[in-house]
Amino acid sequence: MPRRHARYDHTMDERVTRLRERIDALNIELLERLSERAEVAEAIGRLQTELGMSHYDPVREQAMLDALTHANRGPFSDAVVKSLFKQVFQASMQLEHDQDKTRYLTSRQTRDADTVVHVGGVPIGGEHPPVLIAGPCAIESSEQVGTIAAFLASRGVRIMRGGAFKPRTDPYSFQGLGVDGLRLGREAADAHGLAFVTEVMDAADVVACAEYAHMLQIGARNMQNFTLLRAAARSGRPVLLKRGLSATIEEWVMAAEYLLHGGNDQVVLCERGIRTFERYTRNTLDVSAVALAKLETHLPILVDVTHSGGRPDLLVPLTKAGLAVGADGVMIEVHPNPAVALSDNKQQIDFEAFDAYLEATRYHGRLSPGRTELYGAEG
Amino acid sequence: MPRRHARYDHTMDERVTRLRERIDALNIELLERLSERAEVAEAIGRLQTELGMSHYDPVREQAMLDALTHANRGPFSDAVVKSLFKQVFQASMQLEHDQDKTRYLTSRQTRDADTVVHVGGVPIGGEHPPVLIAGPCAIESSEQVGTIAAFLASRGVRIMRGGAFKPRTDPYSFQGLGVDGLRLGREAADAHGLAFVTEVMDAADVVACAEYAHMLQIGARNMQNFTLLRAAARSGRPVLLKRGLSATIEEWVMAAEYLLHGGNDQVVLCERGIRTFERYTRNTLDVSAVALAKLETHLPILVDVTHSGGRPDLLVPLTKAGLAVGADGVMIEVHPNPAVALSDNKQQIDFEAFDAYLEATRYHGRLSPGRTELYGAEG
Amino acid sequence: MPRRHARYDHTMDERVTRLRERIDALNIELLERLSERAEVAEAIGRLQTELGMSHYDPVREQAMLDALTHANRGPFSDAVVKSLFKQVFQASMQLEHDQDKTRYLTSRQTRDADTVVHVGGVPIGGEHPPVLIAGPCAIESSEQVGTIAAFLASRGVRIMRGGAFKPRTDPYSFQGLGVDGLRLGREAADAHGLAFVTEVMDAADVVACAEYAHMLQIGARNMQNFTLLRAAARSGRPVLLKRGLSATIEEWVMAAEYLLHGGNDQVVLCERGIRTFERYTRNTLDVSAVALAKLETHLPILVDVTHSGGRPDLLVPLTKAGLAVGADGVMIEVHPNPAVALSDNKQQIDFEAFDAYLEATRYHGRLSPGRTELYGAEG
Amino acid sequence: MPRRHARYDHTMDERVTRLRERIDALNIELLERLSERAEVAEAIGRLQTELGMSHYDPVREQAMLDALTHANRGPFSDAVVKSLFKQVFQASMQLEHDQDKTRYLTSRQTRDADTVVHVGGVPIGGEHPPVLIAGPCAIESSEQVGTIAAFLASRGVRIMRGGAFKPRTDPYSFQGLGVDGLRLGREAADAHGLAFVTEVMDAADVVACAEYAHMLQIGARNMQNFTLLRAAARSGRPVLLKRGLSATIEEWVMAAEYLLHGGNDQVVLCERGIRTFERYTRNTLDVSAVALAKLETHLPILVDVTHSGGRPDLLVPLTKAGLAVGADGVMIEVHPNPAVALSDNKQQIDFEAFDAYLEATRYHGRLSPGRTELYGAEG
Repeated sequence: MPRRHARYDHTMDERVTRLRERIDALNIELLERLSERAEVAEAIGRLQTELGMSHYDPVREQAMLDALTHANRGPFSDAVVKSLFKQVFQASMQLEHDQDKTRYLTSRQTRDADTVVHVGGVPIGGEHPPVLIAGPCAIESSEQVGTIAAFLASRGVRIMRGGAFKPRTDPYSFQGLGVDGLRLGREAADAHGLAFVTEVMDAADVVACAEYAHMLQIGARNMQNFTLLRAAARSGRPVLLKRGLSATIEEWVMAAEYLLHGGNDQVVLCERGIRTFERYTRNTLDVSAVALAKLETHLPILVDVTHSGGRPDLLVPLTKAGLAVGADGVMIEVHPNPAVALSDNKQQIDFEAFDAYLEATRYHGRLSPGRTELYGAEG
Repeated sequence: MPRRHARYDHTMDERVTRLRERIDALNIELLERLSERAEVAEAIGRLQTELGMSHYDPVREQAMLDALTHANRGPFSDAVVKSLFKQVFQASMQLEHDQDKTRYLTSRQTRDADTVVHVGGVPIGGEHPPVLIAGPCAIESSEQVGTIAAFLASRGVRIMRGGAFKPRTDPYSFQGLGVDGLRLGREAADAHGLAFVTEVMDAADVVACAEYAHMLQIGARNMQNFTLLRAAARSGRPVLLKRGLSATIEEWVMAAEYLLHGGNDQVVLCERGIRTFERYTRNTLDVSAVALAKLETHLPILVDVTHSGGRPDLLVPLTKAGLAVGADGVMIEVHPNPAVALSDNKQQIDFEAFDAYLEATRYHGRLSPGRTELYGAEG
Repeated sequence: MPRRHARYDHTMDERVTRLRERIDALNIELLERLSERAEVAEAIGRLQTELGMSHYDPVREQAMLDALTHANRGPFSDAVVKSLFKQVFQASMQLEHDQDKTRYLTSRQTRDADTVVHVGGVPIGGEHPPVLIAGPCAIESSEQVGTIAAFLASRGVRIMRGGAFKPRTDPYSFQGLGVDGLRLGREAADAHGLAFVTEVMDAADVVACAEYAHMLQIGARNMQNFTLLRAAARSGRPVLLKRGLSATIEEWVMAAEYLLHGGNDQVVLCERGIRTFERYTRNTLDVSAVALAKLETHLPILVDVTHSGGRPDLLVPLTKAGLAVGADGVMIEVHPNPAVALSDNKQQIDFEAFDAYLEATRYHGRLSPGRTELYGAEG
Repeated sequence: MPRRHARYDHTMDERVTRLRERIDALNIELLERLSERAEVAEAIGRLQTELGMSHYDPVREQAMLDALTHANRGPFSDAVVKSLFKQVFQASMQLEHDQDKTRYLTSRQTRDADTVVHVGGVPIGGEHPPVLIAGPCAIESSEQVGTIAAFLASRGVRIMRGGAFKPRTDPYSFQGLGVDGLRLGREAADAHGLAFVTEVMDAADVVACAEYAHMLQIGARNMQNFTLLRAAARSGRPVLLKRGLSATIEEWVMAAEYLLHGGNDQVVLCERGIRTFERYTRNTLDVSAVALAKLETHLPILVDVTHSGGRPDLLVPLTKAGLAVGADGVMIEVHPNPAVALSDNKQQIDFEAFDAYLEATRYHGRLSPGRTELYGAEG
């Protein structure tokens, strides 16, 4: 039986041909009515917008479906009729949406040009060379963050990350220095001419974080903390939005939509690996998500190579992969002495390893014209 | 803006009402043409069946879509028109399929009554009480399997499992005793009045396995080994088909369809946990899959409580959960001395633990009328 | 080669026997030194607690490992030596932890007896019969929630759920009525003698929600919103903590630990399905997680059968599975007219379906002594 | 409490110092005994190899553990003692394995130099430029495959893929032309100077496939079909081994080990995306797996960009990502008219799209010295 499909060069029986001509005519009649229906729906949509009414009216939909199944004499089952008309309703609704200009603000259909986000004086996105953001997982002391800032500046890095509020699974783990950490981070950054990025975990902390940091990071666990998203939108600072551990691309982009909807278009996306069954890596870097986010949105996107793999031996290959699919930069954790770090001590690399990383990625960094090197790594 | 949806008791503007009446009329006109189109398509389908032609003709579909987009004057985009008509084509195709009686053999729409599978003298499925299949992961020696068979028989168990061909990730691990194992397993089963189930890993071994075993097991790794499925279909033995580690329910049921399509309707499904991100359990028992397989197919279904959780402390709760959603039995690994077992030595339980398991599950086993106990556990 | 493992009854060569005696002696010598080492480590731990010092000192660990690899003459590689001693360090650390009584507050090792949580006058957990929490996804109007409350009360349900703040992926979707919704929900509950549960999405709303609701729900997306957890801990209300979409069991229990650590031991866990590859169900109900949470914590646990499967045809089987593994209740969404619901309109069931659900689950509800029915469903 | 960890520059109490000196001494004593124990174990291993005995003896292990727990006086619990000694046993076993030279044949520790696989006259791996393998999902007719072969040859491609035996989820789908397809594929390849790769699905077909094809492909569903792996190992042909849909990297490399263990070291790995929760892509390309497979094995590795994403708009970015992390080539499906293809008709690209793909990937192809272009794409 499977073989009967194998060649499709069969002679057509004449009766089939005649019936197919009837199908062709019906197709055109269907198209004419669908088009007229769409035009009427558009007119309704314009009126609804004028009247301030919602376009979507489930009661009306239900009534139409009831009328249709009442009129249905087969051969399609009522379920099939309903399903087909729901497709038609949806297509009409989409038209109304389009004309209502409620297209998503994150979408390339709304804005084709790449958004460039400015962090301190450093541009991210568009035609700018990929940026390198580096720094410790957590700010632990003035000495620690000062040492790191000096080191990064000496290597040409221009943006430093560092956590003051740490999201920790275990309530008894080190939770960060809080506002003290913010101050220490900013002082160290200023002393060495760096911009400073830090994670904000709560809407109540947005003002304090925005006072000290040049960019606010929203972490994976908070990607759908909508209150925090709304507060960050009002902060006046660019926002780095990490993808949730098991967020779909659609959910991630919708989270960014909260920020733009709230009036902040200085948004940088950050892919940091998704949770899968694989055990050799902490998470699985999803390069397709980077490529699709670039295709479907106008926002810059970074790759967090530390958390994606959770393995120092993957930092270089994941950087290359991220840049190859179009990422606008990478994020990496560096610590003067990872063995004694108060958090993430298996993942952070030391200064020597960082120099080797720069060497390895600069070498292969000539990924495309205009992206000759990891930006900020001229040291 | 979100709030504008909040109450749906708005006054209707009259112009909207008039436009909606036009929509209602168009809906009915669309329905009439869709119905006629479906009748014509059915007539074509009957002719194609008569002529031995395939119903699906992608060239014809492409030509219809080309004609439609050529005729399209908007407001729908060509992409939307194509998408809507593809739905219509698909619905018509489904009607042709239905009339062609190629409904899936595994489906309850094809056969409503529960299939009962007979393994040795033991019935599985339908109104029969849930069955308990127990035995060692691998058959290791005559003494080992003999001891287990005697023990199981003394506890009222009536079907013994035991592997002679072992699927092993590592080529240097113990691979089973092969045909010797089959013989030892059957001898022990016969000596104690048990039916014998064993895994077959290769189409070439089906005849040998079918000679010794009352039921052939197809393992998770081989769920889509289609050659093996076809050979097992011809074996003359019932087949226990495990769900693949990451097989969707649809793929699993389609694998069973290979067996029924090959002429064997004595098929028992077996859910054994799926691969997820969770680390506390080896796999995640998917009880929804058990419920859906019962709803959508007429085949009996077992739950493998050993491999689902990979933890002895979950054997009792997973058994209860499986039976509660309608499983027709459970499968469990038992070994006289798990610490020295040649495979799976962390998962198998010893005789004492098995007695405790029987105690615990019988107690709570009164899950539904007629299912007062785990079948075969009267010992 | 695989077969050479097959039988382990080989005669021992005498030389092997002699070498094995030397191994036996070395094993005992190792044990003696390990035990002494552990005693010394315990003594250090006591001193550290006394001095207010951290027990974990990565610098000290590094120094010990350096000394060991410096002394290592083989045959083990330095990597193996380090790995073995890290195991020893960890085991010692565990001993110090135990004596320091920093056992987790959620753990059964800390508190063996089941916690019973009181919501309004309704007890959840322990020996109490399983509770049924029902209600709409979102509170939409006074009429809607009043109708539901009256219906639920007439069926013997004693706790009503209903969302006033809705977490929505899309910023343009209905976001709930906010504080108005809280008030409407509580009024309806009071009018019919029900307790009221609602989701709180932000630390800033905790006080308002706690004023109106008898129990605060923390949703899946906020499971690791640590600020919210801390605020909910101080609310004076019981907290229903849903498992995150892709949270491991460990992460979920640690989130509950935040609540207990914050002074609130009236915590109910709620499994609501995890995100997997399966497409037939919205999520995959993880019954193993329910069983393990019962084994490892003393907290009551519910199963949300609406969100787990996302399919009305799974409500009954998932309820049975949840109760069979020991859940203390179930949560379900009901709406007078799901087709026009402002959110989740494919998942909620109507009153007729709810009556059928009660019928089906009560029938099979005799899952264990003392759990003869779904609590509150005496209708 | 969390803050007490925050600074680690505490003064050491003298008593702690003294106890730590005792720990240091015990560490060294433990190391001495562990080293002697390892030497004795090595000696036993040499004797066992001489006598043809298995190195792993679970009865002996159990006896040692019994003796140890019998001697244990605390403070470690018996469970901890067992766990620590199991680590010691395992480390010793590893030493015996190493000296027995049974290190895995796929490992870079066994063979440091990159394996180069020759397919027809085309080398894959090592310093050779990345190869491009292209062709239809299924061979459908002489005309179809001839057209494709001519096109590919004109574009400088040197290896053509094409399926004769198709693994299909649904038993009623097109299953391939079988041996006819093999013959048509080889004839077309020969006519245009191409090498020919085809999937083999069953051990019984290995001889026929090896007669016609220059390389045998083992598909994702068959990655752990161990009988097929053993047969392919004996085929005399190179083997392309795809990673299973939800296979861990370890399982995948172990499947390759079956091939090398069976005497065939002409093995090419192929990453083709893993099954995750994400819905925008068919699978998720795991670039970390490519990087890790390159680090841990000496085998060449390809990336299947068609099946990874399942979207034509991802072919270029996934190619770049794969090459950037070190893949030795890519695999892609091409069909003269995808709309009418008998399988995978949404994924294959047509000739025009293939030319655009070549243009896009060549442009960015200068990923590393010596890899200036996609090999075979000079057309």
